[in-house]
Amino acid sequence: MSEAGPDFVFLPLGGSGEIGMNLTLYGYGEPGKRQWIILDCGVTFGREDDTPGIDLVLPDPQFIVARRKNLLGMVLTHGHEDHIGAVAHLWPELRCPIWTTPFTGALLRSKLEEADLLDDVTLNILPLGGTLSLGPFDLELITITHSIPEPNAVAVKTPLGTVLHTGDWKIDPDPLIGEATDEAALRALGDEGVLAIVCDSTNALVPGHSGSEGAVRESLTELIGTLKNRVAVTSFASNVARLETVMLAAKAHGREVALVGRSMFKIVAAARETGMLRGVPEPIAAADARFLPRDKVLYLCTGSQGEGAAALSRIAQGDHPEVTLEAGDAVIYSSRVIPGNDRAIFAVQNALAEKGVEVLTERDHFVHVSGHPCRDELSKMYQWVRPQIAIPVHGETRHLQSHAQLARDMQVKETVIARNGDMVRLAPGRARIIDEAPAGRLYVDGDLVLEDGEAVLRARRGLAFGGVVAATLVLDKRGRWAVDPVLQCEGVPAEIMEDLIDAAAEAAENLTQRQREDEAGASEAVRRAIRRAAKDLWGKRPVTRVQIVYI
Amino acid sequence: MSEAGPDFVFLPLGGSGEIGMNLTLYGYGEPGKRQWIILDCGVTFGREDDTPGIDLVLPDPQFIVARRKNLLGMVLTHGHEDHIGAVAHLWPELRCPIWTTPFTGALLRSKLEEADLLDDVTLNILPLGGTLSLGPFDLELITITHSIPEPNAVAVKTPLGTVLHTGDWKIDPDPLIGEATDEAALRALGDEGVLAIVCDSTNALVPGHSGSEGAVRESLTELIGTLKNRVAVTSFASNVARLETVMLAAKAHGREVALVGRSMFKIVAAARETGMLRGVPEPIAAADARFLPRDKVLYLCTGSQGEGAAALSRIAQGDHPEVTLEAGDAVIYSSRVIPGNDRAIFAVQNALAEKGVEVLTERDHFVHVSGHPCRDELSKMYQWVRPQIAIPVHGETRHLQSHAQLARDMQVKETVIARNGDMVRLAPGRARIIDEAPAGRLYVDGDLVLEDGEAVLRARRGLAFGGVVAATLVLDKRGRWAVDPVLQCEGVPAEIMEDLIDAAAEAAENLTQRQREDEAGASEAVRRAIRRAAKDLWGKRPVTRVQIVYI
Repeated sequence: MSEAGPDFVFLPLGGSGEIGMNLTLYGYGEPGKRQWIILDCGVTFGREDDTPGIDLVLPDPQFIVARRKNLLGMVLTHGHEDHIGAVAHLWPELRCPIWTTPFTGALLRSKLEEADLLDDVTLNILPLGGTLSLGPFDLELITITHSIPEPNAVAVKTPLGTVLHTGDWKIDPDPLIGEATDEAALRALGDEGVLAIVCDSTNALVPGHSGSEGAVRESLTELIGTLKNRVAVTSFASNVARLETVMLAAKAHGREVALVGRSMFKIVAAARETGMLRGVPEPIAAADARFLPRDKVLYLCTGSQGEGAAALSRIAQGDHPEVTLEAGDAVIYSSRVIPGNDRAIFAVQNALAEKGVEVLTERDHFVHVSGHPCRDELSKMYQWVRPQIAIPVHGETRHLQSHAQLARDMQVKETVIARNGDMVRLAPGRARIIDEAPAGRLYVDGDLVLEDGEAVLRARRGLAFGGVVAATLVLDKRGRWAVDPVLQCEGVPAEIMEDLIDAAAEAAENLTQRQREDEAGASEAVRRAIRRAAKDLWGKRPVTRVQIVYI
Repeated sequence: MSEAGPDFVFLPLGGSGEIGMNLTLYGYGEPGKRQWIILDCGVTFGREDDTPGIDLVLPDPQFIVARRKNLLGMVLTHGHEDHIGAVAHLWPELRCPIWTTPFTGALLRSKLEEADLLDDVTLNILPLGGTLSLGPFDLELITITHSIPEPNAVAVKTPLGTVLHTGDWKIDPDPLIGEATDEAALRALGDEGVLAIVCDSTNALVPGHSGSEGAVRESLTELIGTLKNRVAVTSFASNVARLETVMLAAKAHGREVALVGRSMFKIVAAARETGMLRGVPEPIAAADARFLPRDKVLYLCTGSQGEGAAALSRIAQGDHPEVTLEAGDAVIYSSRVIPGNDRAIFAVQNALAEKGVEVLTERDHFVHVSGHPCRDELSKMYQWVRPQIAIPVHGETRHLQSHAQLARDMQVKETVIARNGDMVRLAPGRARIIDEAPAGRLYVDGDLVLEDGEAVLRARRGLAFGGVVAATLVLDKRGRWAVDPVLQCEGVPAEIMEDLIDAAAEAAENLTQRQREDEAGASEAVRRAIRRAAKDLWGKRPVTRVQIVYI
């Protein structure tokens, strides 16, 4: 199907219909000859219940890999893992230049270094508010606010119109680090005319305003002042403004700060490298903090989501080599509970309580604000930008729908809810989904990106449910079973093992000489007998593999 | 260690330091000759992440099984699964008479029937407020309120003093079904003198009051009146007052009610059998409801926790045989999000939103109240009962500690935080933990209660993480490998299979004739080689089993 003239398309490969794993393509040109740019390239994290054993999940880039020669480059809006975490994994297939701002660049550089890619990647650093031309795309960074330094919206300008790609944002009048949201630039863009906004939906179900880092600073400082013994604060490490708040609060109350947890060090290093955290005292080593009086120390820790290997979990378990908390000490969770993490977080909090450590959370104290726009902020953005089309992204279905309704209430003419892989033509003509691109998930399992991840995970979920029986039978040249069937079981009740062996042996014996020679048929017969016996004895059928060895 | 004279002990085997799986023992007599009663015998549910494949978790009863001849009986406070769900599984080892009130009895009877135990169990029905003497124990049921009909506190009276065992409770001034909390009886008990209270801690972190079913009725009725098309309400089936509310609200707005989901039918049957739900119209069959106009039907569904097999999940997936919801219809979640279930619930809500079905929850509407006492209610209970000892149960550490602090603030002299297995001497003398009884978890896996559940689950978690390799090598009489090593893999990346086979073969070849004859040594050498190769190629070590067959 060929069309006359170029079009301007939006194509999310991640982050639409889900939270995390953002990867968005914009294409411009005649269908079949479009040129492409990538905005953001993030991951989501694996979960024991549905992706057992998986560390990271990546967006499947095959669509753009196949069009690599027309890929002009990648722009990263900010440094959160769900926006930059897939770069080091996917870049070897994309091999395009990258642009971002200094702090995000510092974070990315350390990732590329770990992946031994630093020499290969062209990483260009743009100033905040910077501009960039890539083929038909004129890009302009617009400073916004979020829960990490240097968040940028990107105005993607083409001859067919301008898209405002917001990235993650909020309206924080007092972000503490960096400038406030550049309302003037957004209004100016609106005055010039905005074809479409592609906009953060995370808090589209939440009324009101997300609140300000400045207000948290006040409240957290006061709270820390009321505590008498050791204090640990756990927070998302990437929220440098929050880290600064904690460091300044510690200073105000005569406490030294010790960082605990690898990402705290990484972020603080990146922040200092790019000129932040200049007004705070140097943290001391956790090993040294042990010798200070209890009211002179504050630990700034990773682990707010109950992550098993993170600092706070180890402290709560009493097996951190350098940090001990005990009765009378306090832990402040300057963070929220991310869905799915509640039980892990509560387990850590219970372990702390068990030691007599007081646990203070956003439930009872004002110690956290979200980094995403609530409904009042979304409304404001629509007032400023006045787009013709609204495309809600970065959210699950309910968020996207609620956001789309809000946009319609704000007089936006067209709303499109696109899923990963939906190619949306923004112009010319009315916005609509014109094509479906392959889009899926790639699984990082140990050091490998799995070739057939869905199959591997299906197998593992099956193993977790019912264990495994691997049976081997040895048939000699005279067509007789050389030994009893050998069954190796894992995750299957030991009490049924003997009966499973008997079932396998009986099935094997019942096969005729000729059936025994038919490997597929014979192994299937034994497999069915084992599974049937398990079902009878146990009520479940384990994963069962049968191998016949002919000697 | 023998003591002069009898003592009175409290011993939780479940429900202390956790939520769910309640099983409490009270013992009276000389140590070594104590007589015992059981209060409640409940389950908790398995979870894919930490107990993969497990349906139910039971308290390990071995302590009381070993003392069965001194077990006088079991009393069940109310009919929730975490209070009665283990009876059918554990009774064959306990074989004691059971007492409970009519509604709980009806629920239990259907469970015993399914387990083919109805003829064996002596099930005694007590009236509300009834009394019972069991050896040294004089028991008195005291009517309280909760989120199920016929909740009872139990006063356990002995010559050494009285314990008020609250069970699950709240103070609902308008419970709709059954009487309000029997404040007079609780005050009278306090006047007589209460040695100890063993009390629900679920909401001990929540300020204020849990609210009333009567108020939910008003609000829910109004909300349903605003809806124009099909309405589905999902709720905990056991909350009969809530079911009645929904049925009456449907009637008020001219809608027929259809029940959807097995437990809805079970509970409604038990409720009718015991005289409840008399004033509501007969529900119609879901199959018939399809032919009604959209504004004339209301579905009352199971599945408020996102359970995959429950009615609402199937409706959301569009694969329920009798119920279809579509754009413009609405689902009301008259329930809360139980920790750990958030992602499953949101997945169902997103699937509903995907169809254009409106989702209404307690987040935006007053459609639910908790069944457990918030802090103001706990305070009131302490004012009424004035116990000497407070023992918080039914909660995790943070709840128990917060509850204990509240009790101290209410002038309670002694507080004891006991864990499952802690035997607490209540009298004579100061309350303290005097012994540790075996207490643990039993796992119901398919039709079996696992003999070594922890080992099976450890194995399954290992399989979920890294899959499994089962290798078989066949050694002939001349000490030569008869065939190449046979590897059966599941949950392992296919791309490394060939290399694992090579690694196994190489390790096998490198063994001397003598080493090959040593089964344990040879299989361990091959096992290590396979795991080492996997680690090199993949970064992970699968569960690996090697079997050498000697022919």
